[in-house]
Amino acid sequence: MGYYLQNTFDHDAVSFRLINDYPSRPGKGIRPALCLAACGLLGGNILNALNTATTIEFLHNAFLIKDDLVDGSVYRRHDVTLNRKYGFELAMNTGDALNVLGMTPLFDNLKELGVQKSLQIIREIHRMAAKSVEGQCMELSWVKSNKLDLTPDDYYLMAERKTCWYTCITPCRTGAIIGARSIKASDLESITGFARSIGLGFQIRDDVLNLVASFENYGKEINGDIREGKRTLMLIHLLRSCSDDERDRIGRKLSKSRMKKTNEEVEFIRRAMDRYGSIDASIRVAQGFGSRARKTLERSGWAKEARWKEFFIELTGYLVEREM
Amino acid sequence: MGYYLQNTFDHDAVSFRLINDYPSRPGKGIRPALCLAACGLLGGNILNALNTATTIEFLHNAFLIKDDLVDGSVYRRHDVTLNRKYGFELAMNTGDALNVLGMTPLFDNLKELGVQKSLQIIREIHRMAAKSVEGQCMELSWVKSNKLDLTPDDYYLMAERKTCWYTCITPCRTGAIIGARSIKASDLESITGFARSIGLGFQIRDDVLNLVASFENYGKEINGDIREGKRTLMLIHLLRSCSDDERDRIGRKLSKSRMKKTNEEVEFIRRAMDRYGSIDASIRVAQGFGSRARKTLERSGWAKEARWKEFFIELTGYLVEREM
Repeated sequence: MGYYLQNTFDHDAVSFRLINDYPSRPGKGIRPALCLAACGLLGGNILNALNTATTIEFLHNAFLIKDDLVDGSVYRRHDVTLNRKYGFELAMNTGDALNVLGMTPLFDNLKELGVQKSLQIIREIHRMAAKSVEGQCMELSWVKSNKLDLTPDDYYLMAERKTCWYTCITPCRTGAIIGARSIKASDLESITGFARSIGLGFQIRDDVLNLVASFENYGKEINGDIREGKRTLMLIHLLRSCSDDERDRIGRKLSKSRMKKTNEEVEFIRRAMDRYGSIDASIRVAQGFGSRARKTLERSGWAKEARWKEFFIELTGYLVEREM
Repeated sequence: MGYYLQNTFDHDAVSFRLINDYPSRPGKGIRPALCLAACGLLGGNILNALNTATTIEFLHNAFLIKDDLVDGSVYRRHDVTLNRKYGFELAMNTGDALNVLGMTPLFDNLKELGVQKSLQIIREIHRMAAKSVEGQCMELSWVKSNKLDLTPDDYYLMAERKTCWYTCITPCRTGAIIGARSIKASDLESITGFARSIGLGFQIRDDVLNLVASFENYGKEINGDIREGKRTLMLIHLLRSCSDDERDRIGRKLSKSRMKKTNEEVEFIRRAMDRYGSIDASIRVAQGFGSRARKTLERSGWAKEARWKEFFIELTGYLVEREM
């Protein structure tokens, strides 16, 4: 972090302590791991993907800072959020600073990748940012308009943008572009499909954990998604399974802002999910995406390196079944 | 805007109405004008700088959205701010979306500028973002720590980063890079110095207008900077001119948060500035930066096109003496 701080800013106004806070908390490191692994899978030297993997992890951390700000979250990675720790303005500034610093490693790509591929990677990162914003806007507009008639397909469309691109698709695409001598468009499409499947499995599992995990494992508030009114697959399943009368009742509770929802109202929705088997159904959907991803991988022509293929198969299982 | 919206996002979740709100309010358009003019000044076809000028203007608008959010501002460009109009979350999302969309025109540079120069422009824009964040962090840390012993040099260091880079230096540098066949490092340094001077003159004039303009002309709250505790050149002049006793009194008023400062406290500081001639002194400093800029321009070897040189001389006068 110190290297990138010096390489990005020329004054010590950006606090190392603040900008390094989230990145130094223990995280899973899924995104940089996917980027490096995809590079290896396509036959490349994984060291060539290190700059890009670093950017992706930094941008993810910047995103978390903003996300916690907007959601008013209290916990992140087993510690209080930056906004709670230092207040709104400093957290906002730190998020901006980390966003800018996050791009710095991409300019180090020039040496190993040359100008053409370096620019291609920058475009991929830009696309990732666009997809993420789009997904966030979709999710936010659903909460704001208290939308009650969403389908699983709506959810996949949103989650693909909100999560899959920055968590799986862009890491895999950039890793593959760096790793392969040159890559066919059809292979890149196939990799995108694989990454979309593991990304959806990952997000659905994440939403499940938000309901069933222990705080010790999960590091965030349990049932926080219900409180925020997030349109998870479980909530959509519930709204599609329950009676009209129940849907009205749940809709009224959901329409209240995060702060105004009582614990009883959150619990009511949570229990209804149990009653209609919404959580179990979603767990099965996540596993389904895992199987689909594994099939894509098995049949692919682009999965060249056996040990990285092994890694991806194991990782897929972990992403859709993990307990934390 | 519609073109870039389609070119950046593939779903209609990003609201055209919201993202187009600030960009469609009448603004001065100084930044894109500087970029195009610098391109012409160095002998280039100004159309080649259009993409970059567009990016700079979009990013400026994204920055205003965030700035208004953080400052909790109420008015911008003669209308209520986005945060007041649509609430915190939607404003934040719109700022993010405009930031991402703002980068899109840079990828259109490839056709006219080629891959090498396109990447160079992206690096310049990245540097601009880094400087701006740094300047904001400096300013914020001064307010947070209620710093009372700043010098004019501290102010110039901060304002150069907070304002000059994104308002003048980067527009001029990118315009010059695009306009010149190839540009000497010493010329680029000299252009940077020129743009720094007009930028400082512009910012000091802006801070003066915050105190003396009419709302009709200025479009923002009068005395808003005092309320926010911003360390303007006038405030620094006042703190360096007044007695120790007065500095203590002013310091106590400044230490209160924006919301807790009474109108009387704001007025007290404002009147003290009048008493010590802080505003007149700052007006002279701004004019001084204007003269310095004109001298750099007159003596320069890089100001090739006479009509654009004329434009820059007139603009310099406007920036440091404008009434709105």
